[in-house]
Amino acid sequence: MSIKAYGTYGADKPLEPLEITRRAPGPHDVQIEIAYCGICHSDLHQARAEWEGTQWPCVPGHEIVGRVSAVGAHVSGFRTGDLVGIGCIVDSCRHCPDCEDGLENYCDGMVGTYNFPTPDAPGHTLGGYSQRIVVHERYVLRVKHPESQLAAVAPLLCAGITTYSPLRHWKAGPGKKVGVVGIGGLGHMGIKLAHAMGAHVVAFTTSTSKREDAHALGADEVVVSRNPDEMAAHAKSFDFILNTVAAPHDLDAFLVLLKRDGTMALVGAPATPHPSPNVFNLIMKRRALAGSMIGGIPETQEMLDFCAEHGIVSDIELIRANAINGAYERMLKGDVKYRFVIDTASLGA
Amino acid sequence: MSIKAYGTYGADKPLEPLEITRRAPGPHDVQIEIAYCGICHSDLHQARAEWEGTQWPCVPGHEIVGRVSAVGAHVSGFRTGDLVGIGCIVDSCRHCPDCEDGLENYCDGMVGTYNFPTPDAPGHTLGGYSQRIVVHERYVLRVKHPESQLAAVAPLLCAGITTYSPLRHWKAGPGKKVGVVGIGGLGHMGIKLAHAMGAHVVAFTTSTSKREDAHALGADEVVVSRNPDEMAAHAKSFDFILNTVAAPHDLDAFLVLLKRDGTMALVGAPATPHPSPNVFNLIMKRRALAGSMIGGIPETQEMLDFCAEHGIVSDIELIRANAINGAYERMLKGDVKYRFVIDTASLGA
Repeated sequence: MSIKAYGTYGADKPLEPLEITRRAPGPHDVQIEIAYCGICHSDLHQARAEWEGTQWPCVPGHEIVGRVSAVGAHVSGFRTGDLVGIGCIVDSCRHCPDCEDGLENYCDGMVGTYNFPTPDAPGHTLGGYSQRIVVHERYVLRVKHPESQLAAVAPLLCAGITTYSPLRHWKAGPGKKVGVVGIGGLGHMGIKLAHAMGAHVVAFTTSTSKREDAHALGADEVVVSRNPDEMAAHAKSFDFILNTVAAPHDLDAFLVLLKRDGTMALVGAPATPHPSPNVFNLIMKRRALAGSMIGGIPETQEMLDFCAEHGIVSDIELIRANAINGAYERMLKGDVKYRFVIDTASLGA
Repeated sequence: MSIKAYGTYGADKPLEPLEITRRAPGPHDVQIEIAYCGICHSDLHQARAEWEGTQWPCVPGHEIVGRVSAVGAHVSGFRTGDLVGIGCIVDSCRHCPDCEDGLENYCDGMVGTYNFPTPDAPGHTLGGYSQRIVVHERYVLRVKHPESQLAAVAPLLCAGITTYSPLRHWKAGPGKKVGVVGIGGLGHMGIKLAHAMGAHVVAFTTSTSKREDAHALGADEVVVSRNPDEMAAHAKSFDFILNTVAAPHDLDAFLVLLKRDGTMALVGAPATPHPSPNVFNLIMKRRALAGSMIGGIPETQEMLDFCAEHGIVSDIELIRANAINGAYERMLKGDVKYRFVIDTASLGA
C-alpha cells in the first residue's frame, strides 16, 4: 500500500509530493504513523547531493515521532498506540563491539534512516518526510513527554542526541565549565542539555543579537566570539567545548580556551576543511580535538527520558509539507529559531 | 666561579666554547657536575632562533645526567655523590593545579632548563652543554641505572619522558594496540617503552631500511607508511597512536587507523602546519587528535625507575663537544641512531 511522502528525484529539483511504499511489519518490526518530522541540515545536504552518493528518489527526515499502529508477533516492548521516536539509525550489524556497547552509531554496518541500502523498495532507505515508517524494534525509542509536546520532541532524535552524547561522554555536569559554540539547531539543544546536566554553560556566538536568547536557553555566560577581549577572558578555563559550527572557522580561537586535558568535540563537518589547528595549542596543555556523531540507541533513550524528566524540548517552527523548500532556504540563512518541524498531517492534504 | 660551556651568540653562528657562571647552591638547591648531556632537536631550533625569543648567549641542553657535588642546608633527598638527572624543567610556580598534580610541565610558570627567565646571570637559564648546573631539589631526578649506562640514560630526560607520559596517559599496556609514528630520537624510545609496557606495538616509518631496526627496538609489526596496502590492513584497529613526527604530514592517514574512541597524540610541533585533518575522520569513530608535552617531575622519576627496572636506555652516539655543530647537521638529515650525547668531560679539553 502506498503512502504519501515528500522528496526529490534530483539534486537541482525542489522537494515535491511522492508516493512510496513501506514493508509489512515483520516479526520484530514496529509500524509507526508519523506525526511530526524535524528538518536537519543533513536533509538538505543529502537532497541536494552535497554529500556523495545520494540515491533517488531522496526522502529525507530522521527526527521522527509518531504513534505505533502495528507490531510484529515477536515485539514485546511496544504496543499499538504507544508514542515513539525514530532517529538517524534504523538498523546495524547488531554483533560488532560498537553494537554490543550500544553505540550502533559507530557500527560500520549502521543503516541510516534515509539513503542507506535496504532490501525494501526502492533499495535505499526513505526517511521521515512521510506518513509511515516500519523499523525493527531495537531501533525504536519510547517517548515519555506529554503528547502536546510531541512536535517539539522530534528534533531531540537528532539535534538532541548529537549534543547529549558528547556532553555525557566528556562528563558535562556540576563543577564543569562547558562551552557551546554556535546557537542554532544543535547549539540551542547543547545549551539546554548542558545546563540541565548542571554544568556552568558559556555560549559562543558571532551574533550579538543572540545574546539574550542564549541566556534564555540556559547559558550562564554568553561570549561574542568576534570580540578578542571577551574571548581572552576565558583563556585556559574550559573543561569541554561542544562545537556545533559546520562552517570552516578558526579552531585555535577555541582550543586556547581549554584548560589542561580539555577537549573540544566537533559535531559538524565542514564541506571544506577548517584552517589547520596549531599543534602547539594541543601540545601545551595536553588538549584534544575530537569528533562525535549522533549517539547510540540506549543513550538516545536515556536522552529522551532525561529530557522528559527535565521538561526539555526543542524550540521549533511547525510547518506544512509544502513549505519544506522555503524552509531549506531560510535554514541556509540561519533564519529559524531553532528547528523546523513538518506536520506530516499536511502530507495528505 | 666560571665553568666551561658550549653555546652560541647568534642564530647564524656555530656553537663554540663559552664561559658561564652558576649560582652558589641555596638552601634547597642541588649542585650537579654534569657528566653527559643529550642533544634534542629543540636545542637546534632554539640555537638557530627557529622558534621565537631566543636569548643570547644560548646554551642548550635538557637531557642532563651527572653526580651531585654539593647540596643546600635544607636538602634532604640528595647527597653528594648521588647519580641524578635534570630534564626540561628547572622550576615552576609550585602552587597551581598543574604543579599540585605533579604536572609542572603544564604550569604557566614553568621555567625551562634553557632560554627561560631567571634571576641568575645572565637573566635566562643556560642548559646542559656545560660542566655544572644548580637546580632546586624539587626538579632533580634520581638515576638508578648502573653508572656504566649513564650516557645512554641522558636522553630519557626528554625523549624518554616525552614518549612515556602520553603512553601512560592514554593507557598503553597489555591488550592495547599502540602505533608509534617515526623512528627517530623520540620514536625509538616510544617503541621501547610501549613494548615494555606490554602493548602490541606497530612502528610506522617512511624508510623500508628501518624495518629491521624497529623490530629490534621492540616493534611487533612495522608498517611502511608510504605503502597504502600496508596501511589499509590496519584500518580502525589502534587504541592509541603516538606521533613523533614534527615535519608536516598527512594526519588523516593515521587517524583512520584508530578504532572507536582512539586517540592520536602529537609530541612534535611542525614549523608550518600539518594539512588540516578531515573532520569526518574524527566524527565517524569519536576519535581524538591530541597533544602532549614532555611530562611532570613525579612521572619523570617514575619513567626513570621503570627504565632502570626494565633495563631500558636510549640508543646513542657519544660525541665530544667540538662535534656538536656537525652533529646538528647530521641530525637534520636523520643520520643518527638515535640520539647524540655529549661527553661533557670534553668541554674542558
